[in-house]
Amino acid sequence: MTAFVPTYDLPSVNRQILLGRRPDGIPLEADFMRREASIPEIAHGQFLVRNLYLSVDPAQRGWASDVSNYSTAVQIGDVMRALAVGAIVDSKNPAFPAGAYVYGWFGWQDYAAASANDVLTAFAAPVAPLSAYAGLFGINGLTADISLSRYGHVAPGDTVLVSTAAGAVGSLVCQLAKAAGAYVVGLTGSDAKCRKLLDVYGLDRALNYHVPDLDEGIAAAAPEGVNLFFDSTGGPVLDMVLRRMAVAGRLIQCGTASIASWSPLPLGPRNEREILTRRLSWNGFVVFDHLSEFNAAISRLQHRMAAGQLHFEEHILQDFGQSAGALELLYSGRNEGKLLVWTG
Amino acid sequence: MTAFVPTYDLPSVNRQILLGRRPDGIPLEADFMRREASIPEIAHGQFLVRNLYLSVDPAQRGWASDVSNYSTAVQIGDVMRALAVGAIVDSKNPAFPAGAYVYGWFGWQDYAAASANDVLTAFAAPVAPLSAYAGLFGINGLTADISLSRYGHVAPGDTVLVSTAAGAVGSLVCQLAKAAGAYVVGLTGSDAKCRKLLDVYGLDRALNYHVPDLDEGIAAAAPEGVNLFFDSTGGPVLDMVLRRMAVAGRLIQCGTASIASWSPLPLGPRNEREILTRRLSWNGFVVFDHLSEFNAAISRLQHRMAAGQLHFEEHILQDFGQSAGALELLYSGRNEGKLLVWTG
Repeated sequence: MTAFVPTYDLPSVNRQILLGRRPDGIPLEADFMRREASIPEIAHGQFLVRNLYLSVDPAQRGWASDVSNYSTAVQIGDVMRALAVGAIVDSKNPAFPAGAYVYGWFGWQDYAAASANDVLTAFAAPVAPLSAYAGLFGINGLTADISLSRYGHVAPGDTVLVSTAAGAVGSLVCQLAKAAGAYVVGLTGSDAKCRKLLDVYGLDRALNYHVPDLDEGIAAAAPEGVNLFFDSTGGPVLDMVLRRMAVAGRLIQCGTASIASWSPLPLGPRNEREILTRRLSWNGFVVFDHLSEFNAAISRLQHRMAAGQLHFEEHILQDFGQSAGALELLYSGRNEGKLLVWTG
Repeated sequence: MTAFVPTYDLPSVNRQILLGRRPDGIPLEADFMRREASIPEIAHGQFLVRNLYLSVDPAQRGWASDVSNYSTAVQIGDVMRALAVGAIVDSKNPAFPAGAYVYGWFGWQDYAAASANDVLTAFAAPVAPLSAYAGLFGINGLTADISLSRYGHVAPGDTVLVSTAAGAVGSLVCQLAKAAGAYVVGLTGSDAKCRKLLDVYGLDRALNYHVPDLDEGIAAAAPEGVNLFFDSTGGPVLDMVLRRMAVAGRLIQCGTASIASWSPLPLGPRNEREILTRRLSWNGFVVFDHLSEFNAAISRLQHRMAAGQLHFEEHILQDFGQSAGALELLYSGRNEGKLLVWTG
């Protein structure tokens, strides 16, 4: 136990959050069920993880849906698929000894009988609060760092526009783009968050996407056009930004959070002419395609953190049972920072 | 004069095709006017080009439109913007001496008073029939070669799908992809053209896009998904193919020929989720962004031609006056190969 790991207990049952029915769009609290199971046995090659922070991520909506996605759907009655950070408390795998910490596919539950394949990152001792390994050094930081390295091509003077700029990924994208010399404009859902983007995250401009004249706001914020749009929302805002892109602009599509349902398939303006005439490069990004880059990216992020260049907020729910309603909270935008559930 | 240049005359007037009114969608013969002007004087630094082959290109639709594009609109009453290949017959620029040949922005007319900026490629003596410099070694070949080099990433075993596969660009894309080891599937507008794609161009599969079960045809032709879609049409076929792309697939958007009008903005299914979940890379391509690569690309194309790897067809209209109706012919798909107008 280090100063970076709060005290936790070892409950005698395994609390679990199961997918109770197929969600219609955003997963609601009522779509989940709670169960208490026994602590799983570990087989040869496995190890027992005591989950401490359960991660709540927009991508879980896709995993809970049965519409085709980049991963298979969670089955009804199964533990909800989720990332988590935990401590190894028992092991039959010498590469993952008891006492080490891991971040991976351990689900919304207290305990997971895990294998090497379930692990995204493993570390003997945290060098930052353990929760950071599920966010800043987890998929949020990794998504921001790797997507920008690969597709951002941010040059000094570029105008970078970020949707969900106050979110766990967006806020890091903004800060990394700023560090690369860009003029950074953030879109977010309230005036209070706009204030925060300017005052806390150091953005050059912030726009509330609920205003009626958003298109004019974007045009005024990017008079020479947008060189990079990092987008987690899709929908009408994306259509608007496409028509404000600079020639040779890049788009990174990292989510489609603004679309409540894909069935029936929603319509929008045809965009291929914008791609052609502005010579855009539009790239879909899923961080799990880039596992081999995780350790290098975490090193870069730790350096930036040590240099004081990254501000990262966490919103930690303190009761295990709050997991079931956490995606509703996340999609409402009422969370303040990376959403986690403390299970200890 | 070489064996590659047919005999031509030097008319005493300059026949011109002017844009007579703003086309509503595809430019029709009636949108143009004909005029006979005097042969232009050349200023210091200019040279007089006797156009011999006028080029007819899908992109001219965009140039004649006043909807925003990658280039400014042709003004009503101006000579229709066009590429052409011609002979320099008088010169006040030592870099472009009389007797040399040039390919560039010389318009639909007999003579152009040209400057260095108007030239795309210049050559002392043709090594192939002069018309090839407006197609195979002109923007068609350059588009195919440079777009594939830059965005295609074609690897042996890839499935490459090409819209307008029997067209001047598409047929070259198919052959270059085939030479790179891909399984090449072409889309075209008639069974006769399908036959030709298989028998003459050596494709692995050809589909008539007019069939009602096109989606099933694409699925059957690309059971593992499409790795590269080279698209010049956009529209519903593009939407269909997006949903048949392989993970990490690439799209090159080179035209939007299937959309008759962009005003009002046509609607289609939202595509951002496909880009995200399939991790696609969708790139707009305009060959004129890559002028510095033209000479290298022409060398590569000439090597392939010499090796007998490229079959390229030309459809040459023999009367100057046919220029005005040539875009109608092109968009009808009734031309058989690269469409040119011989003015000699």
